[in-house]
Amino acid sequence: MQIRFTDFNNAGNVVAGTYATEWAEIEHVLTAMPLHLKASDQAGIQGKAIFDPVGTNQHIADQLTTAPRSWAGGIPIPAEFSFLGTDIDFGKNGVVVEVQFSNYPFLLNNTVRSELFFRAQTVFHARPTQLVVIVTKAGMFPSSQSTLYYEQALNQLTALAQHGVFTVPIRLVGLFTPVGHVSATWTEYSAARYSRTVGSRSQRQFTIINGRAGRCRIDQVLTANDF
Amino acid sequence: MQIRFTDFNNAGNVVAGTYATEWAEIEHVLTAMPLHLKASDQAGIQGKAIFDPVGTNQHIADQLTTAPRSWAGGIPIPAEFSFLGTDIDFGKNGVVVEVQFSNYPFLLNNTVRSELFFRAQTVFHARPTQLVVIVTKAGMFPSSQSTLYYEQALNQLTALAQHGVFTVPIRLVGLFTPVGHVSATWTEYSAARYSRTVGSRSQRQFTIINGRAGRCRIDQVLTANDF
Repeated sequence: MQIRFTDFNNAGNVVAGTYATEWAEIEHVLTAMPLHLKASDQAGIQGKAIFDPVGTNQHIADQLTTAPRSWAGGIPIPAEFSFLGTDIDFGKNGVVVEVQFSNYPFLLNNTVRSELFFRAQTVFHARPTQLVVIVTKAGMFPSSQSTLYYEQALNQLTALAQHGVFTVPIRLVGLFTPVGHVSATWTEYSAARYSRTVGSRSQRQFTIINGRAGRCRIDQVLTANDF
Repeated sequence: MQIRFTDFNNAGNVVAGTYATEWAEIEHVLTAMPLHLKASDQAGIQGKAIFDPVGTNQHIADQLTTAPRSWAGGIPIPAEFSFLGTDIDFGKNGVVVEVQFSNYPFLLNNTVRSELFFRAQTVFHARPTQLVVIVTKAGMFPSSQSTLYYEQALNQLTALAQHGVFTVPIRLVGLFTPVGHVSATWTEYSAARYSRTVGSRSQRQFTIINGRAGRCRIDQVLTANDF
């Protein structure tokens, strides 16, 4: 996928000074990742291709937590902060990565707990938390309703940062796709909504065109095999 | 009802120095308020008396927003901060009151937006926001599942405050009831769950006894009229 990012609280300098390697690993995983799509089960657009948060999450986890990158995944949050969640997504050397494709209020939760871990110098992996990378999808993707997208996260963090509500260095990352002909990982999940059980997964071809209100349209390119 | 409160970020001095009158009004409304109860519709405890958030909210609104106290109610949040909600509950002279009986993650939302309004010097009524009062119910009440309670809010704000995550003066208030014989406002709502439409409302007598795990048991005292 393609990425864009915005830095808050000097995150750019923190990356350049201390975390060039860790950022390069994150960047590589995200930019080498194919777009992941699934069929919507929302009334009105049922069957249409939409962003697949489960598949994307799994791909990032697989790539980030295995050699040669070997980030720690699902690191437990200390008991005294358990009201902020059970674990962080990924950590390495004081960098925390949170992948956030859920409903948009979760961004505030991620931000508050990032701020707390930064101030409390919480160690998730090797060093106290010094940098948080939050990964989101772009608003261009058709997605499940009310799920967070990059431009929205950017607005919220900008408003909070302008007034100094948080001090932790955060790099906010958005996942984008080029328009045109795109090869994507298509996953069919067994059973219904919210399922994480993969029924089948394959590479398929799609045509992506810019749509109304900044949201793109994704159509599968049918081949002889589909008939 | 009875109240307990805990101050964060010097809220006690802010009250004493500037907001003795506003606090006295809040305190009067809360301590003069009868306990509000309704029947649970949760499987397993259906029909049992539980804390009534809708009735409590309405009582506070009625008492706080009318003369002689005349607080402003439902004051819109500025458009640039609309991702944090549509309005604050009550405001007067730079004091913001938020009544929070909803699911516990809303406390973080209340805290973040309070911090933002404080730092941005947002004016909801007459003066920039200088003090936030968050009203919760005590953990002693049987309640809808996952709803915020005072002791839980206290733990969360304490953890955040210990690490300086927020700077806005907050007075966290808990609503309690004495045990024993208590007269309470009993409301039956028309239709099902989440309804705010009052079917009938009356004063009834209850016996409240301490129960397991800090949660009390509330039994209606039946009178000749009930047979």
